[in-house]
Amino acid sequence: ARPKVGYFYSGKSAVNIIAQEVKNIKVKDMMSIPIIVTEESSVYDGIVTLFLEDVGTIFVVSNGSFTGIVSRKDFLKSVMGGADMNKVPIGMIMTRTPNVVTISPEENALVAAIKIIEHEVDSLPVVEKVEEAGKEIVKVIGRISKSNITKLFVELCKE
Amino acid sequence: ARPKVGYFYSGKSAVNIIAQEVKNIKVKDMMSIPIIVTEESSVYDGIVTLFLEDVGTIFVVSNGSFTGIVSRKDFLKSVMGGADMNKVPIGMIMTRTPNVVTISPEENALVAAIKIIEHEVDSLPVVEKVEEAGKEIVKVIGRISKSNITKLFVELCKE
Repeated sequence: ARPKVGYFYSGKSAVNIIAQEVKNIKVKDMMSIPIIVTEESSVYDGIVTLFLEDVGTIFVVSNGSFTGIVSRKDFLKSVMGGADMNKVPIGMIMTRTPNVVTISPEENALVAAIKIIEHEVDSLPVVEKVEEAGKEIVKVIGRISKSNITKLFVELCKE
Repeated sequence: ARPKVGYFYSGKSAVNIIAQEVKNIKVKDMMSIPIIVTEESSVYDGIVTLFLEDVGTIFVVSNGSFTGIVSRKDFLKSVMGGADMNKVPIGMIMTRTPNVVTISPEENALVAAIKIIEHEVDSLPVVEKVEEAGKEIVKVIGRISKSNITKLFVELCKE
């Protein structure tokens, strides 16, 4: 624990102390619940999910394994293009791996924030490889977004 | 300037030093350019602007004065509802003041982050009251979003 009052050694600066603190915060300790649909779900169901859960991006799985993401922007494009929302499956409009930036639950908060900024995305799926029934699948276990980072920023400053 | 090496007094904690630093960063020094449309613009033009500028929220003005905001979600709702995108004006689907959270350019970064989290919005219009041709108008001069906060977070940790 840091002394709240007194002198303390700053081999580096106060900023580095904060950076160190942030690096100790793991993605798995600050992530949100992921909102997941299957590739076969309709665009309509996807949009309803997006409104009900009030998220900007939904993660897509096929046979339990992560295959990509679909965003508010993808839905808007699809609906504007006149697609039949009840017939077109999410699999048709989603962005597929490996063209999706993901993050591991063991990574730290700073790495997550840097990935979000550098790749200009709103959120990152938190994924891990697991073996299920003898084959390897990529499981989505969380979601980390600019909201999580903004919340962390406020908490760090308020502490 | 903070010493990079050595001892320094911490009447409060390192966290408070960062909080102090953040409070010295003003909204006007970190805000982005606002994307603005008029109330008379069509929903279609609004969506095109949203895609071209790649923002989640557009600010709306009438006679040069700020009157509200319109988000990706509002557009999606409107298009799904079967509205004629070329005929319906933005004024019909926007969220109007005073039901919009705004911020002053002189406020600090922490206040902006807290407002974003507490009101669960993606961005805040940065506004100021000015007098033009003898009457008072509310001018939108910037935009501050979770992206700005996330970028600031990364910069503070990397410094």
